[in-house]
Amino acid sequence: MSESVAPRESSVGATENAHDPVTRGLSRRGLFGLAGATVASAGIGAAAGVSIDRATIANVPAAASYPFFGKHQAGIVTPAQDRLHFAAFDIPDISRAELRELVEDWSYAANRMTAGLGAGEFGPASGPYDAPPDDTGEALDLPPSGLTITFGFGPSLFDSRFGLTSRRPAALIDLPHFPGDALEDALVGGDVCIQACSDDPQVAVHAIRNLSRIAFGRAKLRWSQLGFGRTSSTSRAQVTPRNLFGFKDGTANMRAEDTETIDSHVWVHGSDGPDWMVGGSYLVTRTIRMTIETWDRASLREQEAVVGRTKGEGAPLSGGTEFTKPNFETTGRDGTPLIATDSHVRLAHPSNLGGVKILRRGYNFVDGNDEIGRLNAGLFFMSYQRDPRTQFVPLQLSLAKNDALNEYTRHVGSGIFAIPPGASNDRPIGAGLFT
Amino acid sequence: MSESVAPRESSVGATENAHDPVTRGLSRRGLFGLAGATVASAGIGAAAGVSIDRATIANVPAAASYPFFGKHQAGIVTPAQDRLHFAAFDIPDISRAELRELVEDWSYAANRMTAGLGAGEFGPASGPYDAPPDDTGEALDLPPSGLTITFGFGPSLFDSRFGLTSRRPAALIDLPHFPGDALEDALVGGDVCIQACSDDPQVAVHAIRNLSRIAFGRAKLRWSQLGFGRTSSTSRAQVTPRNLFGFKDGTANMRAEDTETIDSHVWVHGSDGPDWMVGGSYLVTRTIRMTIETWDRASLREQEAVVGRTKGEGAPLSGGTEFTKPNFETTGRDGTPLIATDSHVRLAHPSNLGGVKILRRGYNFVDGNDEIGRLNAGLFFMSYQRDPRTQFVPLQLSLAKNDALNEYTRHVGSGIFAIPPGASNDRPIGAGLFT
Repeated sequence: MSESVAPRESSVGATENAHDPVTRGLSRRGLFGLAGATVASAGIGAAAGVSIDRATIANVPAAASYPFFGKHQAGIVTPAQDRLHFAAFDIPDISRAELRELVEDWSYAANRMTAGLGAGEFGPASGPYDAPPDDTGEALDLPPSGLTITFGFGPSLFDSRFGLTSRRPAALIDLPHFPGDALEDALVGGDVCIQACSDDPQVAVHAIRNLSRIAFGRAKLRWSQLGFGRTSSTSRAQVTPRNLFGFKDGTANMRAEDTETIDSHVWVHGSDGPDWMVGGSYLVTRTIRMTIETWDRASLREQEAVVGRTKGEGAPLSGGTEFTKPNFETTGRDGTPLIATDSHVRLAHPSNLGGVKILRRGYNFVDGNDEIGRLNAGLFFMSYQRDPRTQFVPLQLSLAKNDALNEYTRHVGSGIFAIPPGASNDRPIGAGLFT
Repeated sequence: MSESVAPRESSVGATENAHDPVTRGLSRRGLFGLAGATVASAGIGAAAGVSIDRATIANVPAAASYPFFGKHQAGIVTPAQDRLHFAAFDIPDISRAELRELVEDWSYAANRMTAGLGAGEFGPASGPYDAPPDDTGEALDLPPSGLTITFGFGPSLFDSRFGLTSRRPAALIDLPHFPGDALEDALVGGDVCIQACSDDPQVAVHAIRNLSRIAFGRAKLRWSQLGFGRTSSTSRAQVTPRNLFGFKDGTANMRAEDTETIDSHVWVHGSDGPDWMVGGSYLVTRTIRMTIETWDRASLREQEAVVGRTKGEGAPLSGGTEFTKPNFETTGRDGTPLIATDSHVRLAHPSNLGGVKILRRGYNFVDGNDEIGRLNAGLFFMSYQRDPRTQFVPLQLSLAKNDALNEYTRHVGSGIFAIPPGASNDRPIGAGLFT
C-alpha cells in the first residue's frame, strides 16, 4: 500500500486539538482508507486535523441521541433500541501502533455519528470534489435515531501479533464447547467487534459501513448480523418484546434502573482487573437459529411447557401474571411440577444457578430462506456480564445440557469480547490497553 | 399427506358466512398446514368456519392500518412503509382447485393480519391447547403498523399445470435478457409473490412467516428479501429517502396524489385486458447488488456525474433544487452537457423515453457480508406499471446499455408478477382468474 500521502501533521485545517487522539480527526491511514490508493493524495489531506467535540455540535435532537463519551460505553444499559447491525472484524498484519490508530479513528468517527453527524468532516454535500466524501451519505437527512456504537476486543487480539498477550483479561476466556453446539467457523470469533444499535436500521447500517470503510486495509469484516426486533428490555420504561417463538423474552432481565444489580453483575470492578477494563464489561454473542417450522407444529401446551410460561401473557406456569415470580415448587394434581424440570425458565432462572444473572440484549433476525424454503430465522443472543466464567458459562452449560428448547434451536455462531470502559475527549476506546 | 382430518363443512363454529370464500375461515388444507400430520385431527377443526369481517374488528388504530379490501390491492400507491419482507413461492404439484383454495386462505389471513389480528382465530393466548396456535405470536402485542400484503402471479403459474395457459395476460411477459444481467437462478422468478410492507419489520416478517405456514405443502418459499429503508416516496407527504449510494432516490417518482398519472401509468384498464386483471397492475422486481466499496472510493465529482444530481441536495446538475426539472440542454464552458449523456437521471427520465413512467417502490438491503469482508448491500428495486412491455422494458434497456451507474451495480435477481385487483368480502384475491 502506498505511503505517499502527506502526513497528517502537515495538513491544513489542523486545530489546537490536533494531538488529541479522539478529536484530532482521522489519521493518515483512516483518510487513506476513505480514498484508496489512486486518489489518496488529491485533496484528501484537507480533511485531516479536523476537531470534533460534542459540545460544539448543534441541531442534534438531544432526546434521540446518546453521548459516546462516558464512564461506560453506551449500548449496554442504554434502553435497547429496536435495530441492530453487529460486525466482527479480523485485524490483518499491521503494527500495534497502527491498531491503536485504528481504534482512535473509530472513536473519532463514532463520536461524530452518534451525534448525528457524518463519519468525517467532508460529507456528501460539500467538497473537495476530487476526493470521495468522508461519509457515504445514506444517513445524511436522518437524526441520530438513538445510535450507540460499542467496541469490543476478542481473545484472538491478545495472541502474539500485537504484543498484547500479557494484557489479556483472565475473564476473556475462550468459550468452552457446549453440548449441541453446531458452530460454523465463518460465524465465530473476531479480533474486534462493533455493535451498532439504533431505532432506524439505516442509521445502524450506515455506522457499520462507514467504520468498515475507515478501517480499509486495517480491519476486515469477518461476520455480521442485522437484527430487527430487540428481544429484551433493558429499561423499566420498555414493554417486554417477543422473540420468533412468539413468546415474551427477557421478562426477568435486569434493567438500567436496577443500578445495584447492574453494578455487581455487569461492570468490571477495580478488584477484578486488569486496570484497563475497569468500568467495562464482557459481551457474549450467540447466533441461534430457530427451527421455526418445527416449533410452529408443536401444540400450544407443548410450547408453553418447553418455555415454562404462558404464551399470551408470559406468566409463569405456576400462576400469576408476567412479572409474578415463578414458583418452581408448585405441582399439579399428578404431583409433577407445573414448571417442568427441563423448561427454559427454570433452567435459566437465577434461583437455580446460585444467583447468576446476565444482562441480555438480543435481537430477532430473519436472513432470507434456505434452499428448501425454510426461513433462516432466529435470535442473535447478546449478554453483558462482569465475568463470563461465573455468569454466561454456567448458565449456558445448564441450558445446553437440559433445556427442552434445544430441540428447536441450533447455536451456529459465537463470540466473546472484552468491552473496555467508555471514551472521553482525550481517551479513545481502549486507551488503557495500548498505553 | 394424510386426508384424515374432518372436512371443513362439518366443523363447529361455522357461521352464516361459511361459504363466503374470504370470510369463511381457513380451508381444511390451510388448517392442516398449521398443524402438520400428527396433530391435525386434534381439536383443530374448531377453528374452521370462523368468519372475519373487517367491519367487526374493534380496537384497531385506524390511522396505522390500511384496509385489505378495495378496488386495488393495498401496498402499491399506499405511502411506502419503511420496511419490507418480500417472498416468491413455487407451487408444487397441486390441483387448480387447491391453488384457488390456497389463495382464498391467504386472502382470509391477510385480511386479518392487516387489521392487526392473528393469522387465524386461535392465537397464542387461547386454546385449543392440544393443537398449535393458528398464529405464531410474535406480533401479538403489536399494532397493525401500516401492514399491507400484496399478492401477485408469475408467468410460470400460467404453464400447463393449472389449466391457466389461456388466462395469461399478454403483458405478463418473460423479461428479456438485459445487457449486463448477472442473474442467479435462486433469486429469479416464482409462481406467486407476496409483498409485505410495514413500519415495523417484526410485523412484516410475521406476515410472510404465517402466510408461508398456511401454505405448507401448497407453496414453497423460493426466494425472499428483507428491506429496511424505502428508497422511494409514493406520497407527497413523504420526504425523499436515500439509497445506499447516499443519494436521494425517487425524487421524480409519481405519487399517490397524482391520480391521473397513476391511473394512466399504473392500473390496468378494461381496454387492456384480460378482464381478471382490470384494476390490477404489473410488478417488476430486481435485486440489485451495489459494489459499495468501489463506489465509496469514487470522488464526489464522479459520483454526482454518474447520477446527474448533487449528492447533498439532490438537485439536477443543470441547477436548481431537488424538485427543479432537469435541463438536459444546459452545457458547461467546454460545451459538454452539465448532465452527462450517460448519467442515470438522463437515461431514466421520461422525457428521454417517450414519456415512460413507472411507480417505484424499492427498498435498501444489507444481507450480511461475503467471504472477503464486503457488505452484501444493494437496492431491492420494485416498480409497478400498467404494462411492462412499454414501461419497464424500454426503460431498463436504455439503462442497461448506457447507464454510468452500471459500473457500480449488478442485477442478481429478477421477477415479474401480475398483480390482480383488490379483494372484497366475497371476492378473494385473483377471484376472476379462477372462475
